[in-house]
Amino acid sequence: MRILVLGGDGYLGWPTAIHLSAAGHDVAVSDNYVRRSYDEELGASSLVPIASMDDRVAAWHEITGKKIKVYPGDLCDAPFVHSMVADYHPDTIVHFAEQRSAPYSMIDQKHAVYTQTNNVVGNLNVLYAIADVDRDIHLVKLGTMGEYGTPNIDIEEGWITINHKGRTDRVLYPKRPGSFYHLSKVHDSHNIEFACRIWGLRATDLNQGVVYGVETEATKLDPRLATRFDYDGVFGTVLNRMIVQAVLGLPLTVYGTGGQTRGLLNIVDTVECLRITCENRADKGEFRVFNQFTESMSVRQIADTIAKDYPGEATIEEIENPRVELEDHYYNAIHTALVDLGLVPTLLSETLIDSLFGIVEQNQHRIDQAAIQPTVRWRETSSELALSK
Amino acid sequence: MRILVLGGDGYLGWPTAIHLSAAGHDVAVSDNYVRRSYDEELGASSLVPIASMDDRVAAWHEITGKKIKVYPGDLCDAPFVHSMVADYHPDTIVHFAEQRSAPYSMIDQKHAVYTQTNNVVGNLNVLYAIADVDRDIHLVKLGTMGEYGTPNIDIEEGWITINHKGRTDRVLYPKRPGSFYHLSKVHDSHNIEFACRIWGLRATDLNQGVVYGVETEATKLDPRLATRFDYDGVFGTVLNRMIVQAVLGLPLTVYGTGGQTRGLLNIVDTVECLRITCENRADKGEFRVFNQFTESMSVRQIADTIAKDYPGEATIEEIENPRVELEDHYYNAIHTALVDLGLVPTLLSETLIDSLFGIVEQNQHRIDQAAIQPTVRWRETSSELALSK
Repeated sequence: MRILVLGGDGYLGWPTAIHLSAAGHDVAVSDNYVRRSYDEELGASSLVPIASMDDRVAAWHEITGKKIKVYPGDLCDAPFVHSMVADYHPDTIVHFAEQRSAPYSMIDQKHAVYTQTNNVVGNLNVLYAIADVDRDIHLVKLGTMGEYGTPNIDIEEGWITINHKGRTDRVLYPKRPGSFYHLSKVHDSHNIEFACRIWGLRATDLNQGVVYGVETEATKLDPRLATRFDYDGVFGTVLNRMIVQAVLGLPLTVYGTGGQTRGLLNIVDTVECLRITCENRADKGEFRVFNQFTESMSVRQIADTIAKDYPGEATIEEIENPRVELEDHYYNAIHTALVDLGLVPTLLSETLIDSLFGIVEQNQHRIDQAAIQPTVRWRETSSELALSK
Repeated sequence: MRILVLGGDGYLGWPTAIHLSAAGHDVAVSDNYVRRSYDEELGASSLVPIASMDDRVAAWHEITGKKIKVYPGDLCDAPFVHSMVADYHPDTIVHFAEQRSAPYSMIDQKHAVYTQTNNVVGNLNVLYAIADVDRDIHLVKLGTMGEYGTPNIDIEEGWITINHKGRTDRVLYPKRPGSFYHLSKVHDSHNIEFACRIWGLRATDLNQGVVYGVETEATKLDPRLATRFDYDGVFGTVLNRMIVQAVLGLPLTVYGTGGQTRGLLNIVDTVECLRITCENRADKGEFRVFNQFTESMSVRQIADTIAKDYPGEATIEEIENPRVELEDHYYNAIHTALVDLGLVPTLLSETLIDSLFGIVEQNQHRIDQAAIQPTVRWRETSSELALSK
């Protein structure tokens, strides 16, 4: 299968690209490398050193003999997207190429507008390119579990059958997301569902949970194949950030009481979910939604698990929640579709945590302690980050 | 009350501005006049001649002694929006200032991207300006009944209580809109609901039906106060367009079988709904939604009503539906909130239709017959309109 991975330079895009290549697919990647420039803007960087895209694909070729074609460019550039899709003519497009940090989208007006414009326009351009070039191309789009918010009813996989006043319909699951970033993904989902309806496109929306971990089978083959590890308050995901705090002997910080429950998954499951989704196409005209996570835990439970496993001393500290979110809520999200297609979950384990401690310790000299704490507050219209510029 | 009307030069923005002024409120308007340039792009124009904004406000002052301040500018220009809101410091912002044609948004990729960017970014800038300047400002935002689509269950006013697997929650009503324009309004609604949650803003989302008619008490005072009347295939709403077809002796064209049912309202009710909403503020933090229409009819019923009332001969012709929409569907949309606040509906009547025939006949020499038929097709990625440029 020919698969084009958009955002192929990112935390998950790169490991997905080489996982798909290792699984025998023809893979091309595209990226505008803007994620690397966010690092410069924020004065942050990946804990694990990452190679340039040229070095990455060269290393992959050297080690496996497999070629990955690279299309450098921006999805907001419509002619670029159109010519890339026409030139590579993939069977499947995997679309990771969005600004993916909630705090980044909440820095100020400019970052909110940037996030929504970048994500919504990029995605629209991909939809138009598919509709124009070949409506049979399967779009596999990364969404987020954060689109749903924390409703008091079970979270279904994208669609829900409602009985209301004696009548019934199957409708899109109502969303109530928690940041302008999460909102951009809700906008994308609505746009994609419409494109399936009017153009008969095939699409799968993967509402992914919080990813942790940094290594996959393929990235471990060579240091040049490593993917990024973010631990800062803006791009670091909760578990990865807490591992860094433990290694530094800092308290593991939970926002508020830490009662927020979220769906989690290991990076090794992310790449498998993508392979499984690509190999099981949505039907013509189908807007299919999978909830892509393997287990639910509260932020407090994540902290407890890390603290318990860390060989040294680790304490937990509650800090004022910079976000606006419920800290005590019902949470039961269905996530059976990917398991039904063959996903074998890799649950959070001591082995995984131990290996993460090791990776962080190896790179401890690269940690910028000042970057860890949250600097973006949801209730304010302009954060310290924006003001310090 | 101080009310700032965004999009105050448009079909409904202008009549609303002078209606609010006539009702004793202090009114300012803002517009970037882009609606007038769409006319140039499409080679179309208002059937009724319209004055410039300067002439409009001068006439209003001459006739009523009331002043309307004008802020010319673009909502996508964040500093402009911020300084306007800070300078005028309204109690209420009425936000009409969006690209509001479904066919226009479906012309091609460029028009889809323009519509979503323009509408979403403009609205985000308004939200940030309110959050920054004064969180007590009530945002009254124009949405559309088209956001809901045609579900098989009753359409509630923005929110719905769902019972699911033994649990209950009140959630945003699930939307399934029918164009990239309608989608932009869905995106806006989600963004506004979030702003109410994080910043405690007060907002009312008015999901308006299809408006017909051209005159209000205030616009009738002087020809310079007239608002636009669109009959073309891109910006003309269904009833107004059919009136023109009747006067020209052309068949009234329905798309497909004409079984599509839509909520309608008279322009005189639009301006009253806006007055009532402004004078009854949403609570702090409340995202309130009203369905703003007075009666539901199928497109076929609208055509039948006009044909029956037209003094000459009028025939009805089914043409291929350029849109993707159900033509035979359940439709029961609740619309009690505005009536509960005092709206007295002006239902479609022979008197109204007769007066519209008169206005069209007076301006018959200005009609461009070629502009009436649809030129934008939902299933195509690029319409005749785009290709002819």
